[in-house]
Amino acid sequence: MNDMTPIATKCSLVEVRPTSGLPEFLPNEQIDFNFCTDVIRKHYELAGAVPLQTPAFERVEVLTAKEGGDSVDRQIYGVARLPTRRDAKAEGAEEPDEDDSSPETGFKHALRFDLTVPLARYTAQNAERLTFPFRRYQIQPVWRGERSQSGRYREFVQADIDVLGDGELDILTDAEMVAITSGIFREMKIGAFVIRLSNRKLLEGFLSSCGVPPGKTAEAMRIVDKLDKVGMAKVAAELATRLGLAASQTELVIRFVSLRGRSDDVVERLKAMAGPAAANEQFVRGLQELEAVAAGVKLLGVPEQDWGLDLSVARGLSYYTGTVYETTLVDHPGIGSICSGGRYDNLASLFTARKLPGVGISIGVTRLISRLIEAGILKGAAATLAPVLVTSLDRRAMDRYLAMTGRLRNAGIGAEPFLENQRLGQQLRYASRKGFRFALIAGETEFAQGRWMLKDLVTGEQSPVADADIEISIAASLKHPSD
Amino acid sequence: MNDMTPIATKCSLVEVRPTSGLPEFLPNEQIDFNFCTDVIRKHYELAGAVPLQTPAFERVEVLTAKEGGDSVDRQIYGVARLPTRRDAKAEGAEEPDEDDSSPETGFKHALRFDLTVPLARYTAQNAERLTFPFRRYQIQPVWRGERSQSGRYREFVQADIDVLGDGELDILTDAEMVAITSGIFREMKIGAFVIRLSNRKLLEGFLSSCGVPPGKTAEAMRIVDKLDKVGMAKVAAELATRLGLAASQTELVIRFVSLRGRSDDVVERLKAMAGPAAANEQFVRGLQELEAVAAGVKLLGVPEQDWGLDLSVARGLSYYTGTVYETTLVDHPGIGSICSGGRYDNLASLFTARKLPGVGISIGVTRLISRLIEAGILKGAAATLAPVLVTSLDRRAMDRYLAMTGRLRNAGIGAEPFLENQRLGQQLRYASRKGFRFALIAGETEFAQGRWMLKDLVTGEQSPVADADIEISIAASLKHPSD
Repeated sequence: MNDMTPIATKCSLVEVRPTSGLPEFLPNEQIDFNFCTDVIRKHYELAGAVPLQTPAFERVEVLTAKEGGDSVDRQIYGVARLPTRRDAKAEGAEEPDEDDSSPETGFKHALRFDLTVPLARYTAQNAERLTFPFRRYQIQPVWRGERSQSGRYREFVQADIDVLGDGELDILTDAEMVAITSGIFREMKIGAFVIRLSNRKLLEGFLSSCGVPPGKTAEAMRIVDKLDKVGMAKVAAELATRLGLAASQTELVIRFVSLRGRSDDVVERLKAMAGPAAANEQFVRGLQELEAVAAGVKLLGVPEQDWGLDLSVARGLSYYTGTVYETTLVDHPGIGSICSGGRYDNLASLFTARKLPGVGISIGVTRLISRLIEAGILKGAAATLAPVLVTSLDRRAMDRYLAMTGRLRNAGIGAEPFLENQRLGQQLRYASRKGFRFALIAGETEFAQGRWMLKDLVTGEQSPVADADIEISIAASLKHPSD
Repeated sequence: MNDMTPIATKCSLVEVRPTSGLPEFLPNEQIDFNFCTDVIRKHYELAGAVPLQTPAFERVEVLTAKEGGDSVDRQIYGVARLPTRRDAKAEGAEEPDEDDSSPETGFKHALRFDLTVPLARYTAQNAERLTFPFRRYQIQPVWRGERSQSGRYREFVQADIDVLGDGELDILTDAEMVAITSGIFREMKIGAFVIRLSNRKLLEGFLSSCGVPPGKTAEAMRIVDKLDKVGMAKVAAELATRLGLAASQTELVIRFVSLRGRSDDVVERLKAMAGPAAANEQFVRGLQELEAVAAGVKLLGVPEQDWGLDLSVARGLSYYTGTVYETTLVDHPGIGSICSGGRYDNLASLFTARKLPGVGISIGVTRLISRLIEAGILKGAAATLAPVLVTSLDRRAMDRYLAMTGRLRNAGIGAEPFLENQRLGQQLRYASRKGFRFALIAGETEFAQGRWMLKDLVTGEQSPVADADIEISIAASLKHPSD
């Protein structure tokens, strides 16, 4: 087949349309997206984490290990080679491939649905070559086979940081996660936020002490976790009907999970609690942990308005065993948690006998950016990252325009030459549509005078700059923007 | 099911092992990987390109459009949801999903195998909302269902930049690709490289003028393209046996494709050529294009030693129609081309009636990094990006260590506190294993004197620094490294 003559013709165009659940951004939105992932990455790296990227595929046994292997609760995408012409021609000619998979034989590989299972598999596999505590971050897409009607994403980027200990991991590590979260959202400048902190042992101990039977605390935590979404009355009703709690017990629980505020106040009230909770071992340990984490957060210099305790935070269906976090935007509670995480006792128990306790947070970047764009918080600024368009007023002087472009780039200033044969007006229209900050303009007159016109496309002002001063002049304006 | 009690136990650990064809890096290697992609991204952005990310899935018709739809030449991975417990329980309860796919019904979606088809689909789909010329870059993984025996990668990251015109695109754009490539590999500091430039029209025209029939020029170009790999004798033999060229014709072709060197010299020799080639329209147009591109490359200030013309570059099976590029490392020719690309007439003819000519280059990052590591060119430096480990000599002073960590991070200096209960010796061993540049050490004595010991882990030197001067002192050392 000759690659240069496609079979399809204009009368049989392949239809192109967005696929639901697979979000895709326009250039100005993707620039915002990258700004946010850059900020996250910067703060993860400032905190000493190293990057990790894992392949999109994992073996199906690895992804379904938690469910026991033969069936899955999560919506996972299997992958298998499409049949090819070569297969059809030379059936059986190749040895069957040990790692191969096909729809007929069942899937051998599937796409990761989170970044936690790959972290567990990677750490178990490379434990001897890693240095513990292992601080890693991972910013990659994950895939979930959601039905398209659900309005959920089938592919979305997650940005996780975790610290894993070998055998043990100091509780102060949990405080670092709050400092990292605060650093990220301060720099993103997406409005006031609050990192809400709690501890599952504390809540579990309290629920036990209220008479919730041990087998039911997980369900009780799931109910309580919905407090912010469904409100107090509904949580009370569910606790009564689904767990059979008496009215007095329900009231105790509701009062407990309504506790929120500055850490000193909440800790003081928890310490002052009398009754069965104070005698519950889990409760006491949870309180110690929470107090230590809160003290660490203060020492790391996290601004007071950025965080607080909130005992309703339980991280419903998760595997967390101690500290838990959620972060919400103060003025946009409807967006829900924009960064969640917690402490777990043993990450990779399915893959290794080595005990790996850890703590981590996760930011669902695609969802966050989409919501921020919808809410008008991210405005999708310019559709260019380069600040300068070098226009071509006089095509005979193209040599000068190209040379100037090269000079600007060498000085670290992003520059695009306008190479098409169009009038200056059209070129400037292109510049403003893409959102360039400056246009450089020069023709015979300017060249004769050894200068260029530097047009500030934000203010509309235009001023002559000597040829030799162009880089310095633009660099200075970019450092001290006039707007 | 209670998520907190996994079904599998220690006696039934799920095996973890590397999967062939799915490369995965250790932290120090991943840091090198990210350094390289950061350099690429920086230069793509300096050249005015905007980022694009597309979903991993495309509809199968889109990916196979070129092959006509019902069968494929490339090894493509289809994706389909694994059956879930919910499916088994509630068969038929949900409406069939328009966008859904399953192995039984055939795959509706598959993973992209390059970044060109997604670019074509995206541009066709969003043409009305994009500004042309559309300069975009895309750094994402692609997947190819290679047999694992082949030693090829099944997942690898590509870093592409393309400029697409609406109807037309000036030839000088082709020169920019050479400038961008040069900027990238200079900054990567991976040794001397040469960007080899040619033009398919020129070669095609020459082959025609030598008597290669029109239907055979594509095959001839494929043979010629292997010159660097298989040598002159083999190319000559293939031209004779497969295309039936006479010895005199073969000699002409071999002499032509052996032309390489500085652009002025080669262009001069091409212009001086008499005989049938000089009268061939394709040849003449190709020569004009090549001359214009070479002139542009010079004007953009690309250093002379970084590039040259090489008429054997033909980009075998590709869809290029004019300028073609390949880049090789001078001291490591065995690594092959590390950056390739070219000009094409019409990117998205399968998806839109709009004519979109373009030019682009592609760097196979995963392959490049793997080869650079194998060849010892990238040495996998430190396994940390943060330069400072704040040790904890005296656990009672943990408040001071945490506060110092917060201070360093606020000053933009990556810092990790050592939080585990271990002796200083173990802490310093951790520091050198991970490759920290500095360790901060302080106990009662130092705190009484209001200072810290700053240990340079590269030189081994240790010096006292006043508490208030820590950030300034470290920042200064990082700017002017002592090694």
